Parts: sequence; C-alpha cells; structure tokens
Amino acid sequence: MFEATKVGRSVSKEDYKAQQEELRTQLLAIQHDLKESRIPVIILVSGVEAAGKGEVINRLNEWLDTRGVQTFAFWNESDEERERPRYWRFWRAMPPRGEISILFGGWYQTPIEHRFNGYCTDAELDGELNRIVDFERMLIQDGALIVKFWFHLSEADQKARLKELSRDDKSRWKMLPDKSKFSEHYATFEQVAERIILHTDRGVSPWYLIEASDRRYRDLTVGKTLLHAIRSRLAEASNGDAANNLVSPDLPGSPSAQITLLDQLDLSLSLPRDQYKTDLKRLQTEINELAWTAYNKKRSTVLMFEGVDAGGKGGAIRRITTAIDARLYRAIPVAAPTDEEKAHHYLWRFWRHIPRAGHITLYDRSWYGRVLVERVEGYASDAEWRRAYSEINRFEEQLVDSGVILLKFWLHISQDEQLKRFKDRESVPYKRYKITEDDWRNREKWPYYKEAVNEMVARTSTRHAAWTLIEGDDKAYARVKVMRTICDTLSESLKGDPIPTAGYVPCGEKRIVGGG
Amino acid sequence: MFEATKVGRSVSKEDYKAQQEELRTQLLAIQHDLKESRIPVIILVSGVEAAGKGEVINRLNEWLDTRGVQTFAFWNESDEERERPRYWRFWRAMPPRGEISILFGGWYQTPIEHRFNGYCTDAELDGELNRIVDFERMLIQDGALIVKFWFHLSEADQKARLKELSRDDKSRWKMLPDKSKFSEHYATFEQVAERIILHTDRGVSPWYLIEASDRRYRDLTVGKTLLHAIRSRLAEASNGDAANNLVSPDLPGSPSAQITLLDQLDLSLSLPRDQYKTDLKRLQTEINELAWTAYNKKRSTVLMFEGVDAGGKGGAIRRITTAIDARLYRAIPVAAPTDEEKAHHYLWRFWRHIPRAGHITLYDRSWYGRVLVERVEGYASDAEWRRAYSEINRFEEQLVDSGVILLKFWLHISQDEQLKRFKDRESVPYKRYKITEDDWRNREKWPYYKEAVNEMVARTSTRHAAWTLIEGDDKAYARVKVMRTICDTLSESLKGDPIPTAGYVPCGEKRIVGGG
Repeated sequence: MFEATKVGRSVSKEDYKAQQEELRTQLLAIQHDLKESRIPVIILVSGVEAAGKGEVINRLNEWLDTRGVQTFAFWNESDEERERPRYWRFWRAMPPRGEISILFGGWYQTPIEHRFNGYCTDAELDGELNRIVDFERMLIQDGALIVKFWFHLSEADQKARLKELSRDDKSRWKMLPDKSKFSEHYATFEQVAERIILHTDRGVSPWYLIEASDRRYRDLTVGKTLLHAIRSRLAEASNGDAANNLVSPDLPGSPSAQITLLDQLDLSLSLPRDQYKTDLKRLQTEINELAWTAYNKKRSTVLMFEGVDAGGKGGAIRRITTAIDARLYRAIPVAAPTDEEKAHHYLWRFWRHIPRAGHITLYDRSWYGRVLVERVEGYASDAEWRRAYSEINRFEEQLVDSGVILLKFWLHISQDEQLKRFKDRESVPYKRYKITEDDWRNREKWPYYKEAVNEMVARTSTRHAAWTLIEGDDKAYARVKVMRTICDTLSESLKGDPIPTAGYVPCGEKRIVGGG
Repeated sequence: MFEATKVGRSVSKEDYKAQQEELRTQLLAIQHDLKESRIPVIILVSGVEAAGKGEVINRLNEWLDTRGVQTFAFWNESDEERERPRYWRFWRAMPPRGEISILFGGWYQTPIEHRFNGYCTDAELDGELNRIVDFERMLIQDGALIVKFWFHLSEADQKARLKELSRDDKSRWKMLPDKSKFSEHYATFEQVAERIILHTDRGVSPWYLIEASDRRYRDLTVGKTLLHAIRSRLAEASNGDAANNLVSPDLPGSPSAQITLLDQLDLSLSLPRDQYKTDLKRLQTEINELAWTAYNKKRSTVLMFEGVDAGGKGGAIRRITTAIDARLYRAIPVAAPTDEEKAHHYLWRFWRHIPRAGHITLYDRSWYGRVLVERVEGYASDAEWRRAYSEINRFEEQLVDSGVILLKFWLHISQDEQLKRFKDRESVPYKRYKITEDDWRNREKWPYYKEAVNEMVARTSTRHAAWTLIEGDDKAYARVKVMRTICDTLSESLKGDPIPTAGYVPCGEKRIVGGG
C-alpha cells in the first residue's frame, strides 16, 4: 500500500518558489468561497513519526487566512476531556460551517497508538474503525468535507529524520513518545497503518497518502490536494452533482515530482529466446503439478489479469492454460456485460465465476474495469468509481478470508511498444481481429489511464491482495515473471498443513477450506 | 425494543377478507411498476422461532405475481456453496433489476444462530454486522430496495405456537433445530436479536418489527408494509427526491390492529394529594443524597425529558432541580438553535452540555427533536430523520459506554387533558406566557406526532437506553413516577464497585469513569 510513497519524488527550490505563490493565492480565494458555501472542512493530519506533521500544519497556517482556521492537537487530555465520553474532545474541535479545523491526529491517533503498542487486538481495532467510519459518514451527510492526509517515509528516510531531529531539535526530541519503538518497529507500524487506512478509505472520505521525504514536494502536494478537494466539493455543492474529478490535483510541476510507480518499472528487462524456452517448459510443468496439489488440498485460486491494451494478457494466460489440466480451470474473458449481467450489481458477474474448492479461475480483465475504463470513459459516475475501491477491497478480502489464493497482475508496456504492437496487429491478417477503433481511441487517453492505474494500485494493493506489476515490453520476460510469481505463490500457499489456519473465521464459524 | 410487538394487535376474519382483496390488487399493480423501474427488491424474512416465517413467505408468493418473484431458503448449504466464499450463496440469490427475491433468514441467519449458540463473542458478531451494513449499503447504492422483516412473539405466545406445532405438524416439528433451546432461552435470543437489529437498523435499510401473534394481522401488515416500501422507493426514483413518507403504511383497519404502545398507557393512574406530598418529600431527600454519592463516585448523569406539549416536563424538572445542590446540575432548555448551533451538526449542541464526571445535566427537550418536531414539520428531510435513529442510538451508546447514567422520559397525556391545560394556561395570567400559537398548531397534528413518537420509542428504546413512558394526566402521579425511576436507577447504578466494569473499553483503552 505504501509503495507509491517511496518513489523519491522531490521539488527543486526554484520550482517551489514559483509554484508556492500561485498556490497561496488560490488557497486564499477558495477559502473565501468556502465561507460563502457554509461547508465545514475538517483536515486530519496523520502519518509516520518524523514525517513532519507539525511542519505541514505550520505551513497550512501560514498559507491560509487564519481567521477561518483553527488547529487542534490532542496531545494531552485535559481533566475536562477525560471526564467526558471520548468523542467530546472532537466535537469541541468541529469547525462551524464555512470554516476549517485542522486536527493533529484526530480520532485516528488513539487507535493507531493502542494497536501499535499491543493494547488491543485487531478485532477491537476494527470495531473502533467501524465507529469512525459511521462518525465520518454522519459528518459528511451533514455537509462536511473531510480531508485525510497520511504522511509516509521509507524506513531509511525515517531513521535519517529522527537522527536529524535528535541533533537539531533537542527539546522536541525529548518529548517524542516511544521514539525508539517507532523506528525499530517500522514494519509493525506500517502494518497497523495499512489496516487503519484500508478500513477507513471510503469514497466519500478518502485518504491521501503523501510521500514526505522531500519537504517541498510534501508541502506543495498538501496544498494542491487540499485546494483540489475543496474545489471539487464546492463544485458538487453548486451543481448538486459530482464535480469533474477525472483529473486529480495538479501535482507539483517539477519532473522529479511527477514520477509514479509505473514510471519506476524497468521496461528494458528482457529474456533471451533460449532461456525463455527452458524457463517456460519448467514453469509449465511446475504449474500443472501445483494445480493438482491445489485440487487435492481443495484450495481455490483466482488469477486476475489487467493491463494496457496489447500489454500481453492473452499471451500470458494462454501459456498458463495450455499447461493446466482443462478440468481444473476456467478462463473468463471479461467484455461488455450481457443483459443479464447489466441487470445486477457490477460485482455480480465476477461472483458467478468464483471457483469451487480446488479449482482455478483466470479473469482476463476484471472488476477493476470499474476504476479503469468505466472511470476514464465516464460509464461510472464519480461517486460510483470512488467508492469502488473499498467495495473491491472488501470483495477481495472475502475471497482471501475464505481461503482463495488471489493473484493480481498488471501487464505494463511503454507507449512506443504499444504503437509497435498495434501496427503489427493491423498488418498481420490473423491478428487483425484483435485491434479495433476503440484501441486507438483508448490510446489517446493514455495519461488518464495512467493516472487511473496509479490510483488503483495505490488504493488496492493490500497486504492480503497485492498487485504484481509486470514489465511487459519483452513478452518472454513478462510471461516468465507471471508464471514464476504464480508458482512461487502457489507452492508457498500449499505448503504444510492442508487446512489454512490464517483463514478468517466469521462469527465463530469454522470453515474447512482445505481437505485431507 | 420489542415492547411494541407485544401489544396484542389482531384483525378479525371479516376485516381480513375485506382488506386482503384490495391489498392483492395493489401489490400486483406495484409489481408491474417495479418491473418498469428496474429496481431490484430484496425481502429478508427473520424473527423468533414459530413466528410463522414460512407462512408469511407462502402468503407473499400467493399474493404476488410469481413470474417476478424468487424465494430462497438457506437451510442446508450445498457442496457448491460450501466450497466458495460465504456470500457466494447470497449473490446467487440476487434479484435482477425490476424483480423480487424473498430470502428466508438471508445473511442474518448465521450470525443470529452463532451468537445464540455461543460460537462467537459480541465483538465477533459486531464485526460481521459491520460487514452486513457495508454489504447492504453497497446494494442500495446500486439502486436496490431492501425490506427487512422481523417477526416477534411474546414468550407465552411462542410457547403456545411451539406446542401447536408439535401437535399439528409433526414432520416439521422434527426438523426444527434446537427447538427446546429457542423456547427455554427466550430472553437470550431476544438479547441477541436486539443487538443485531439495533446495529443494522439504518435509515436506508430499516427493520420492520412485526407483531406475529395474530396471523391475519401479521400477514396484512407485511403486505401493507411491503406495498408502502416499494411505493416510496418508486416515488423517490421518479422524483429524484425522497417520497412523502410522513405517514407510514396504512396499517390494517380493525381498531384492534391500531393499538400502539402509547395507547396502552393507563392515563387514569393518579395519586392522592397527601400521598403525593409524603412521597415527594422523601424522594427529594433521596435524590439529593444520590446526587452527592454520584459526585463522590464521579459518575455523571443525563436526565432527558420529552413529551406532549403541556405534558408536565417543566413541573417534573423543577421538582428535581429544587431538590439537588445547584453546584451539581445544569438544566438545559432546548429551544430553537442559536446561530452558532445552526452552524454545526444537530448533535453538536447536545454534546456541548454533556456533564463532566459526577455532574448531572437535565435536558428539557433533546436530540429527539430531530425525529419529532423536525420530522412532523418537515424541517428535516426524509433521509435526515430516518438516519437519525441510528445516529441517536450510537450517540447514546457512547454516553452509556463511557459510564454516563442515562434516563429518557416521555411524558404522555390525553388529548382531552391537553385541551384542559391549554385553556387553563390561557386563563391564568402568570401561565399565559407558556402557551403560544405554535402549541395550538401542533395540537392539530396530534396523529402525526403520535405516529412519530411510537416509531421513536420502537427504534430507540434499547437495552442500554430504554425509554420510560410516564402516564401524565395526573401531575402528582407523573412527578412521583419520574422521581422514583431516577432514584431507583441511580441507587442501582451507584451500588457496589465505584468503577463500573460494564463500561465499554475502546480499543484496549482503560477509562476510569469512576473514582475512589
């Protein structure tokens, strides 16, 4: 989930200077419109230790007109607060309509600390998170805009920051609670954070994950994200309709600030022809054996393929299906929905094909169409695709919790490679059926698709259902990577005890997902 | 919560005959409109054992055009189902747009049984209920209408039904799982049911609690409720706006079918003058002592008064406040909100006055204004007051969980008594300020208010925050009952261990709500 906050984005001093002024002007202007609109805005500032949450809050107070902004820290509970129900302190911090409250940590602070310190179980944490979801929904239904920032640092960056802090700001350093813990248990903290963000990242109150290692990038991104969020909310209020959110906030302008996860893929990776042949043969044998093992152990598998047009999904799928016994798998090509499918919820047609115990379903395109083609082409409304992230996460959670082995592949190729393949398809008679007007049209929307893919991966790459990004310019390399990932995951998942113990047990129900 | 399902409503054979025909005609007509509208309808049928769920489903199938209706029981899990994620079976049962699925138990069946049999904890149950809330919300956002029926019987009626069943329908009797358990542990079952209903009773998918002891009343009520729910949903779809739901379904016409909880209050109850004086004095002394005990034990109290205009709220409150040390309480008269209050969520102004540890707040009118005056006068939209029930339940839950002692009074008087008091107020100079045009206007809306009160009590009288209904025609009787209820509750709550152990501990946090 946090991969996208570790790509190393930064903004140069000059760029920062140039953009800051414009941003401040726009923020002040929108604050004025906000006052008129009577929409209350709640900004929640959370993140890993030493990410600079305090600095960001100072920056926002510098940029905004302080007459409409109040900042609240929940560092120490007062007597007054301790003697009342827990949420009393947050109700005190609520902005009046048309104004802004900035909440340091807010209602996420205690759950994070408590889970991190082991004062509560995951189940207790989930209970609290559900109360939070209800609480936020109630405020939003009342007209509020909630903007939730999570600031993140890589482990190395955090270490460096803490060191810097211990040298430069001794007084604050002394105040830091459990500072050794935070840096020593980076992975644990990240795990807790992922659970919290995943559970509370709803369409109506999404989290914005901000890469915090470069201060200039961090601050500009916060300012622009806030501006965009308020602007969308105002447009929604005046149209009575969702704003055109197709394009997300104009991120800071330096090229180094615009890098994405997809940009980081090394598309030059390739595999020599003979190596490919050997690997493929070996992997195909292995995958067939694993499929039979899964069948005997009654574990089901879902293999899902998404990717750029002409990215090589079909080829990769064919290499797998030709290897596996036909009784064990079904390949589901996902095209436009049938009439019957249209008469149901969009997830219905994917639920239909969930494999029974011991079987494999391969989806050639999937439920992610909701946040890809349907988003970009406007088939789904803004609200629909925004809430789809959490709907999809919950759907996949159900699969995994019931013992399904789930793998999600994104096959990526460069724009040049796509052009080459399109032209190739047009010139080869038996490939011509594979290319349509739609493909050329989609190609023109490349930047929109790219943005949709980046957001999709950031919001749905979870611990239990991570995306595997495939460098696809070289077909041989891509196919082998796909198959190797499948083989590694299957053999790991099928190891040991045939009955998976990690499986979620709903309400005390003991499901036997694996057999003898 | 189930009081309103035990008032003994019934419908005579003649009335049933007369109404059934009309109802069937209307159901068939609306089913046709439904088809056009492409709204999928999911009917969930749950309730206590022997309430006749099967009979109701047969009746619906008899009344509706079966070409648009499918019925699903989840009695035995098939192999196909067992080998897939739990919800696969429910996805299979989803109606296409424009059609109806009737689900026997549906997704509530397993959680109820598992909790009742002790296979899971309350926390695990809550986790499952949250998944259900998300699931239902997702379907509703996709356009579905979910109608949830809960059929209830008193303990005696259930016993009689089970006996009847063992005599008349031996084959089904043998099939009943745990039949002894259901009747022997009536109270436990009710407790589990309340938790489930309370947690999943949302504005967008409310539960309809149906008194099931009289079969004719039960079936007609189901039919009319269903008709009303579909009609409202269709109106909403065509207006793009909430339907006029001010008046709830036309319940079956026999007078015996129209009895409500409020009708059952015996307003003739009274207290002789000298008895009143003695009681009052004794109770006032007691309440003052208890207030000091609560102060020493650091337990807070919220006393909330709602009632019919001229129902005697002011008088009752004055008898309490004159008895208690002024340092220990605050009385909050709730009138039209101030500008500052209007600039916040409607609950904000009540949160403000939540007492600190050891103190008492008396609310003269309250947050229930949302589902009373705001509902009846149209100040709150349909969606707003409908979702307010669960918002209020959650708010009160927070109070109680943090150790607040909460008492809610409804002071009820007859229409005749109100008229007498209004006239009296007009004729006595120092009382004249108490009567306004508004009061007379509200009086004309008596039936609407009565309906709102009945629904309010049914949806918000919970185990942890029950309503106390006060028979108010005799002021002496009413005041003494109010004060006795307070004294009994306070002395019970303040007994023993100063630190309440029942208090909810959020996410492992140990709150000390009581002191030494």
